[in-house]
Amino acid sequence: MLEIAFQPDRTGDVALVHQLTEHLAGLIQTGRLAAGSKLPATREAAGALGVGRNTVSAAYAALTTRGLVTAHVGQGTFVASPTRLAPAAPGSATAPAPREFAWNGLFARSTPRPRLPHVFRRAELGGSWTFDFRGGRVESDALPLHELRWAFARPFASRARLRALAEPPHPLGWPALRREIARYLAGRGIACTADDVAVVGGLQHAIDLTARALVDPGDAVAMEQPGYFGAALAFEGCGADLLGVGVDAEGIRTDQLARVLRVRRVKLVYVTPATQSPTGVGMSPARRSALLALADEHQLPILEDDYDSELRYAGPALPALKSEDAAGQVVYAGTFSKVLFPSLRLGYVVAARPLLARLATMRLASDFGSGVVEQAAVATLLATSGFDRHVRRMRRLYAARLAALLAALRRDMPAGTRWTEPRSGHVVWVTLPPGIDPERLEHAARDRGVAYTRGETFHVDGRGGDALALSFAPLDPRAIAEGVARLGAAVRMQIGAKRVPGHVRPAAIRSGHGRRPAGRSLHGAH
Amino acid sequence: MLEIAFQPDRTGDVALVHQLTEHLAGLIQTGRLAAGSKLPATREAAGALGVGRNTVSAAYAALTTRGLVTAHVGQGTFVASPTRLAPAAPGSATAPAPREFAWNGLFARSTPRPRLPHVFRRAELGGSWTFDFRGGRVESDALPLHELRWAFARPFASRARLRALAEPPHPLGWPALRREIARYLAGRGIACTADDVAVVGGLQHAIDLTARALVDPGDAVAMEQPGYFGAALAFEGCGADLLGVGVDAEGIRTDQLARVLRVRRVKLVYVTPATQSPTGVGMSPARRSALLALADEHQLPILEDDYDSELRYAGPALPALKSEDAAGQVVYAGTFSKVLFPSLRLGYVVAARPLLARLATMRLASDFGSGVVEQAAVATLLATSGFDRHVRRMRRLYAARLAALLAALRRDMPAGTRWTEPRSGHVVWVTLPPGIDPERLEHAARDRGVAYTRGETFHVDGRGGDALALSFAPLDPRAIAEGVARLGAAVRMQIGAKRVPGHVRPAAIRSGHGRRPAGRSLHGAH
Repeated sequence: MLEIAFQPDRTGDVALVHQLTEHLAGLIQTGRLAAGSKLPATREAAGALGVGRNTVSAAYAALTTRGLVTAHVGQGTFVASPTRLAPAAPGSATAPAPREFAWNGLFARSTPRPRLPHVFRRAELGGSWTFDFRGGRVESDALPLHELRWAFARPFASRARLRALAEPPHPLGWPALRREIARYLAGRGIACTADDVAVVGGLQHAIDLTARALVDPGDAVAMEQPGYFGAALAFEGCGADLLGVGVDAEGIRTDQLARVLRVRRVKLVYVTPATQSPTGVGMSPARRSALLALADEHQLPILEDDYDSELRYAGPALPALKSEDAAGQVVYAGTFSKVLFPSLRLGYVVAARPLLARLATMRLASDFGSGVVEQAAVATLLATSGFDRHVRRMRRLYAARLAALLAALRRDMPAGTRWTEPRSGHVVWVTLPPGIDPERLEHAARDRGVAYTRGETFHVDGRGGDALALSFAPLDPRAIAEGVARLGAAVRMQIGAKRVPGHVRPAAIRSGHGRRPAGRSLHGAH
Repeated sequence: MLEIAFQPDRTGDVALVHQLTEHLAGLIQTGRLAAGSKLPATREAAGALGVGRNTVSAAYAALTTRGLVTAHVGQGTFVASPTRLAPAAPGSATAPAPREFAWNGLFARSTPRPRLPHVFRRAELGGSWTFDFRGGRVESDALPLHELRWAFARPFASRARLRALAEPPHPLGWPALRREIARYLAGRGIACTADDVAVVGGLQHAIDLTARALVDPGDAVAMEQPGYFGAALAFEGCGADLLGVGVDAEGIRTDQLARVLRVRRVKLVYVTPATQSPTGVGMSPARRSALLALADEHQLPILEDDYDSELRYAGPALPALKSEDAAGQVVYAGTFSKVLFPSLRLGYVVAARPLLARLATMRLASDFGSGVVEQAAVATLLATSGFDRHVRRMRRLYAARLAALLAALRRDMPAGTRWTEPRSGHVVWVTLPPGIDPERLEHAARDRGVAYTRGETFHVDGRGGDALALSFAPLDPRAIAEGVARLGAAVRMQIGAKRVPGHVRPAAIRSGHGRRPAGRSLHGAH
């Protein structure tokens, strides 16, 4: 599978085939397509890259002529071995740089190359999937076009307003936005003022900054398993030693965490209490108390990722863990990118002053702060209730999609399949019947136009091959039904099961308190 | 001097005096205002914080009542000692948290707290200076209001355009912006395609990401002295050992760099070739060749900061060092924040593929990428020549201001003062006559309403007390003339010199090739 982005420039003067040839040549010459690796078949590549099959054939032919690939009849096209990649004649348009600088020995040890989760290949694979359950996107039709247009126009409404843009950004955020966030968070039970809030570039940035402020290489960080892959990426980027703690229908297994803390000094524990990522489980009051007590006993900071707090479809909203944090040891993080749009890189942190002071210095050293146009626009949306209206709309939309997904799973997945029934968030976590090969299933699903996030993505130790995450956010109910039907067919094909419509009622693990049918770990003790 | 931001909320229901009291109480209770430190006099504080003197007096009185400060007649107001800061009665509105979490032992060693340069106190001091030569701002009246409004409205012009926002950002930037940047950089002599470009959150971010990709704690980084304080901040944030290399009228002293490289393995050299920051000197062709040869000999990556390339007022534009980089060892960084507005956090990096691949992973682990609204808006400005028109306008505006500043310096600074005469950028570097105390001069200037950046800010070793940087960008010619007259008076007062109007013609060090009057180091060998 081609794993490198190709962005065809369809507006330019350069023929697509030339663009693709140069792109692939670059990948080969820089070693990103390794010698001996097989290029995808032209039909496959054409689909994945969003170009015609003839374009791919012509590009492969051009690469063959240059000696960058070799074609073997009946076998396919392969990247040529390095001896074939000798510098072309000087003056040739494809001549490599005369002295190739040896970057690879120079990278910092203290920022080890984190493993790149499978899910990030999405950006590289292009968006040609019909039934894409991988999430991370929103439907543009669901966005409040007029309200966004108005909010983003406001910073340019007059010369007087422009003045805010002409000053350097405050490292902790635009004051008016910090005030609006503090006000907004009262709804999450968090009592804070603008001075307790830092604006950051999204939730991933909140995790990364907190990790960099606290974690030295070799320090231990505890996180839920399965757990949010982006957090693992940020922690590993700091050289952290990741300790997985199991999750069940009440949230993180605090008994496991207690055992871990008895034998190992842990620098930070990362949790998603409102909507566990990826299972969608809400953390029970008992677990919250146990977690806060453990954190107090071990003087352990807690990073609370409240990424989807707005998206609750049933039952009362769970208060933020931060609302019970008397000592100031919970770092609370939220985001506007989930409910508004993912390319809006704006989130926030509420934390004790010593950590905020550290974050301010880190922002000054890193990027001076977040852009003010976006901050001003979001402050406007918050102040005018445009944000609240949009949240209510998205809640209705996503509730219907969640219902459609759960109905489709009941209808189309073979016996032995289990899944969570979240009351919030945007993901359902599916555990497959025994005997499924994750690699084969993924390919079979893709052949049917279905993409999802593999379970291993949410584990730091290679587990999760029996599970997958389905995001219901970016697909309408019809697409959800059809996509799950196709996925179910792919699963059944592997286990040789037959569909018995209307008869299959698998064990479902409900999230929420007092309704757990099992009370045991979803994924075993880690 | 109060060093902590106070952002009065003049729209809210809370009285200013109450806001200020709570703010100061918070600073004292969290230890940011240390016990025993003296609060500024009410007049001073009122000016710095932008509130009335009565407000400050009332806030001080309230703090005294609470026991947080003590007033000594004739001496001033002091933060009370910790014994006085015992918890208030439970239930009191000012009771500290019952268990105060001990953050201070927890911060990562690998991100040592960088020293916070003096210049960053600007954000904390507020903007009440009449003659503010500290730079970092632009004049909002100079911004192209209608073009900005139009460019930022385009992503919301239709549902079809909204689709770009509904996808996660590409970690290396929005493809259309990357293409526009590649096209734009042809004007700097840099041959590259969109695939060679990474969009980042401003030039500081370019430096920080490059540093984090390459620098382990204890690694040596070489940079110009005087040199850009933000770069020093980013490098120190990675635990780098900073090696200063002198600057003269041809730019960085490559003879000094060669000596450094003979005895020390250096991981990265950071330079500002087009407009040396802060002196404004352009690097001569001979030095460029020498630098590239040294980098080749020692397999040393070069970070080229081309922050002000657009702002050239005389003579031909100097090509980017990157344009002569055959091996791909120059990392080139530019920004849109300088010419457009500082709260627009968008810049770019052109680098070899292995480094770009590393940057992509770092962005995924850090913040997923830059916001797309801003990227789309800047792509529009670049594609429609709105950006070029604005650059030409700013060039004319700033050329007049530079001329005004040089004329004012000639007119009003006492004998023995020297300064650079840059042909580009936005700063003039002034070296004062012997015998000036930097602390006293700064206070005397501030008493006259004049602020500038002290020379020490641009040195990593405490030197530079005899120098200061004057940014001419944010002030009109009349303000420049008046500000320099006041500054000159403050300097003369210190050295006891009298103004001899029209008679003083100090030694000026011109930047540019073939016009150097001295050829020696401006600031001595470091």
